[in-house]
Amino acid sequence: MTLDAVFKYIDDNLEQSIEDVMAYCRLPTVSAHGTAIEETAGYTVALLGEEGFETRIIPKRGDGFPVVWAEQKGRRADKTLLFYNHYDVQPPDPLEEWTSPPFAPERRGDAVYGRGVSDDKGNIVSRMLAIRALKAVYGSLPCNVRFCIEGDEEIGSPQIAPFMKEHGEMFQADACVWEWGYALWDGSPTLMLGAKGLLCVDIEVDGPNRDVHSSYGTVIPNPAWRLAWALSSIKTPDEKILIDGFYDGVKTPTEEELATLRMLPDDGSMFLESLGLHDAVLGVKDVDYRRRHIFEPTCTINGLTSGYQGKGTKTVLPSRASAKVDFRLVDDQDPDDVLAKLQRHLARYGFEDASILQSSSERAARTDMHDPFIAVAQRAAVDAYGREAFIVPSMAATGPMFHFVKDLGLPAVMAGINYVGGRDHAPDEHVRIEDYRRGTKHIAAILHRFAE
Amino acid sequence: MTLDAVFKYIDDNLEQSIEDVMAYCRLPTVSAHGTAIEETAGYTVALLGEEGFETRIIPKRGDGFPVVWAEQKGRRADKTLLFYNHYDVQPPDPLEEWTSPPFAPERRGDAVYGRGVSDDKGNIVSRMLAIRALKAVYGSLPCNVRFCIEGDEEIGSPQIAPFMKEHGEMFQADACVWEWGYALWDGSPTLMLGAKGLLCVDIEVDGPNRDVHSSYGTVIPNPAWRLAWALSSIKTPDEKILIDGFYDGVKTPTEEELATLRMLPDDGSMFLESLGLHDAVLGVKDVDYRRRHIFEPTCTINGLTSGYQGKGTKTVLPSRASAKVDFRLVDDQDPDDVLAKLQRHLARYGFEDASILQSSSERAARTDMHDPFIAVAQRAAVDAYGREAFIVPSMAATGPMFHFVKDLGLPAVMAGINYVGGRDHAPDEHVRIEDYRRGTKHIAAILHRFAE
Repeated sequence: MTLDAVFKYIDDNLEQSIEDVMAYCRLPTVSAHGTAIEETAGYTVALLGEEGFETRIIPKRGDGFPVVWAEQKGRRADKTLLFYNHYDVQPPDPLEEWTSPPFAPERRGDAVYGRGVSDDKGNIVSRMLAIRALKAVYGSLPCNVRFCIEGDEEIGSPQIAPFMKEHGEMFQADACVWEWGYALWDGSPTLMLGAKGLLCVDIEVDGPNRDVHSSYGTVIPNPAWRLAWALSSIKTPDEKILIDGFYDGVKTPTEEELATLRMLPDDGSMFLESLGLHDAVLGVKDVDYRRRHIFEPTCTINGLTSGYQGKGTKTVLPSRASAKVDFRLVDDQDPDDVLAKLQRHLARYGFEDASILQSSSERAARTDMHDPFIAVAQRAAVDAYGREAFIVPSMAATGPMFHFVKDLGLPAVMAGINYVGGRDHAPDEHVRIEDYRRGTKHIAAILHRFAE
Repeated sequence: MTLDAVFKYIDDNLEQSIEDVMAYCRLPTVSAHGTAIEETAGYTVALLGEEGFETRIIPKRGDGFPVVWAEQKGRRADKTLLFYNHYDVQPPDPLEEWTSPPFAPERRGDAVYGRGVSDDKGNIVSRMLAIRALKAVYGSLPCNVRFCIEGDEEIGSPQIAPFMKEHGEMFQADACVWEWGYALWDGSPTLMLGAKGLLCVDIEVDGPNRDVHSSYGTVIPNPAWRLAWALSSIKTPDEKILIDGFYDGVKTPTEEELATLRMLPDDGSMFLESLGLHDAVLGVKDVDYRRRHIFEPTCTINGLTSGYQGKGTKTVLPSRASAKVDFRLVDDQDPDDVLAKLQRHLARYGFEDASILQSSSERAARTDMHDPFIAVAQRAAVDAYGREAFIVPSMAATGPMFHFVKDLGLPAVMAGINYVGGRDHAPDEHVRIEDYRRGTKHIAAILHRFAE
């Protein structure tokens, strides 16, 4: 028994699938702005329906957007694989830095560009192709397949915790394939086994009730200065996060985990070069680079806003200043606990003029590298890529994996069409066609091997 | 001999003059954006021409905008008074904070609102009324009058130094009345005798050549963090400016200067209250407040820009971050020297990823409070306000006064229609009608007393 016919089907239908990705990505489904949500949920249901899935659109309570549920029975009734995806995308700005418009996807050379082609709509369409290929060759799916496709992952999956409490049963399975999977620059596959947690906040400092002539800088408190000082009290140039107790719950990597890092090629220097940079933070290289990236928590300024930002000068003292800041959390760090500690930190340092608005949070989760499902995904990697995948204990990014790994008790692995240079969340987000081909075959092979 | 008839003329024609201010302020002469410059220069020349002035529009070389020159002979051929003004205004944003549109001036209650009504078009029109009143009563001006009306004061009067070297002769006079003059909240007049210097810079930090997914905060340098740290290295929460040698050239106020501060009423607490604030910087009050405001140099963040600034979250690591910063300088502080010291400071602290773009600079200047022209302005204050003006050794704001006081050797004093609550440079800039009336009479009385 062989996957050759399935892979041939994928090769033969690849171009049409890329067209399907581009059509899907014309929808500007920016969850941060609440645009095209219902339309895209409906479009997603239609995509799944065409492949024979039973579907439902389940609303989240409160702030969240609807979740698309789908199910299709397979030959092995006792095994169910769950795919987690999301149909929303990041905001497209800065618009002027896109080579082609973010919501008018374009094929250029050996890649396809557009918001969502990599993160995450491209993966949804790729999974449809893998499923179609298996059914074309075998007449049915090898096992039961379920989908959980969120509409608000990019704003931190609000309400996912109560949603899973209420509807978790519908997403029960034996294993989970996460939203994406990353090839390295040279096309080598990886199997990522976890996701970091996340806490997103706006730190806003209020000053005078209006902008004031800057000559009053002698006497009128300046919220932009207060913000700069507040931020500098949180993290220092040596990258130490000074919030008391912030590192509680962070574990030291095991020898076995560090060994996986040593096996990985040095992608860091290539990534730095692609960004026009010479040095990583603190000058870390190779294994130290990957150790920071995979195992360390972060505190990152996402944006700063205050006062006059136009061209030329405007000598004002601004009435307010704000920073968007995210924390990527690891291991047992609890975002609620970090938020409380941040609030205490600002109070202790006298920043009573600063207020914190929490916009989203998520906990970290990881799957044990000895779980049998990892071996399944590894065998499938050999099928699709002709080589074993590199094991990566966690991705540096976040998703609501905690609710599947901890609440539902599923092993989860990341497999898909992405590569590390794909500019997710940034202008010119793209997927390489060859990664799309291999990643789609990997998904088909996982389904096949999982049912063996 | 009395000014009564002149003052009556001003009273009788005040409403029309306010209408003239509103018409003038409909021109959106934002020098920072280069809008309506030529149109406003022409409009200004027409205003002066109507009052019998000979006029010229003199281009500045390089970056600057044209200067309007005007002259009219008076009865005393041996005495010339120079008025300095500017026909440009500050940018109007944040637009949403204006009660009425900035360039559609509106009379509300006992004040007139719009960009430029206070700073500085209102003063130009007021001076036209004072001149018209004197000529209506006496048939001619009491002395020669010249005007120097810049078009780029709000962007720091670029090219003023070479311009004055080339054309200084045309602006020779015996004394100078500066662009404006401020009443206190209760309407009491002041005579301000100087202006602070100014250095405006953009500090820009470059990071990766594009925005990156914020999960790379572990390893990719973040220009927003670098900017926060760079700014915090420049000034600390105790308001000390840490640039080595920054305070060189700052003089300690004399006992006589401090005495003028003690005479002034406590306007600070009223101003704080109008801004919705309880405490001034460092908690200073009363004389200490005024001492800081009048004699201390500043370093003020005017604006911050980096990364994502929209609603919701976007978890990016920004590719660049920038701050607009101005320094108000006093006494012998030299902006070129401060700029060089700032550059050395950033280099010394390892911020080689930060670049500084200088956008404007000016030196401080002050007139000796014992100059006879100050006594003239003081007698005129008694005429117009029925009381002596408070002497203020310097305003906290800036203008190109250095080139008139130092290059041309003129005593200069500030007199005009403004008051300290007029929201110059901010939304809802306004002038109180009663200040407009008194300030116009003061200008007429200064011309009259000067020729005595």
